[in-house]
Amino acid sequence: MQEEQINPWKIVDEKLMYDNQYISLTHYNVINPSGGKSIYGKVHFKNTAIGIVTVDKDLNTYLVGQFRFTINQYSWEIPEGGCPVNENPLLGAKRELLEETGLKAERWKVLGTSYLSNSVSDENSVFYLATELSQHQAQPEETEQLRVKKVSLHKAFDMIDEGEITDALSILALRKVQALLLQGKLSFNK
Amino acid sequence: MQEEQINPWKIVDEKLMYDNQYISLTHYNVINPSGGKSIYGKVHFKNTAIGIVTVDKDLNTYLVGQFRFTINQYSWEIPEGGCPVNENPLLGAKRELLEETGLKAERWKVLGTSYLSNSVSDENSVFYLATELSQHQAQPEETEQLRVKKVSLHKAFDMIDEGEITDALSILALRKVQALLLQGKLSFNK
Repeated sequence: MQEEQINPWKIVDEKLMYDNQYISLTHYNVINPSGGKSIYGKVHFKNTAIGIVTVDKDLNTYLVGQFRFTINQYSWEIPEGGCPVNENPLLGAKRELLEETGLKAERWKVLGTSYLSNSVSDENSVFYLATELSQHQAQPEETEQLRVKKVSLHKAFDMIDEGEITDALSILALRKVQALLLQGKLSFNK
Repeated sequence: MQEEQINPWKIVDEKLMYDNQYISLTHYNVINPSGGKSIYGKVHFKNTAIGIVTVDKDLNTYLVGQFRFTINQYSWEIPEGGCPVNENPLLGAKRELLEETGLKAERWKVLGTSYLSNSVSDENSVFYLATELSQHQAQPEETEQLRVKKVSLHKAFDMIDEGEITDALSILALRKVQALLLQGKLSFNK
């Protein structure tokens, strides 16, 4: 499918409208694929989003709760964080898991990757399964006010279905684990 | 869990930095939950994102391909669109499905909702299962250059696992269908 490789959007001009430590926003005047004039406000992310599904030997997982400023709601999520796009995301995942929950994991497996909001941003994500857990001291960042709770994996799946987990990255990662379990492709002997 | 209701973020001041027909970006100076000074660049979405998993009687689904300006990549996705936040998203879903694929569906079911990128934006999404399909004339928007292809549902699930579908909304919706199928909770007799 060679034509898929060709970018049909032409940039006429661009202007940086906003920049902070996490994101920047650039306004583009463009010629769209049909040849007409259009605009794009594109949000560039300086970090890759990272999410971690932890599973212990009893098929429990750890959720992190915080009040999300953006949506003006409390949100229960898997442990998450950001990793600069040029750094190793696995190292970022290990750091974020320890910071937020105090957990270390012996085994790590990539569950998938996904662009979270590609109509507007280039935010990419990587999500992991972390098993063979041990508890250490949590080290939350100064800006965070987090609560951690342990629930069964099946409770977490129910929380998605009941609308109690609404965060996309959390759902992407947990649903992959659910699919693997239902297909008999995961087992937790330790 | 009463404390979950209390917003621990205090806004000191705010400034609108960007505004177009789809999004706006506001810069906030805030006091974070720990009492320290922080900033937030929040992207407000004027539309709810809508995604539709179509399934025909042979367990095929329709994917839409387009070159995504934001990620500089071609992307195969479920039919998607935006619906103003104060409009009925089901009407928006029916309109988008017809525009992009020419399909009408007799049966619609909500698969879920999700905030797609809550570290930065308030973008919400609703995703549907649409069945009992009939083919009509597609009506793509002038800015769109779309290709439509029919694949089996199982091929679509494989495309997620192979990294050929990277769009979060598509994966959120397809994984829910996969979970329902694996649990024996979906059947397609027509």
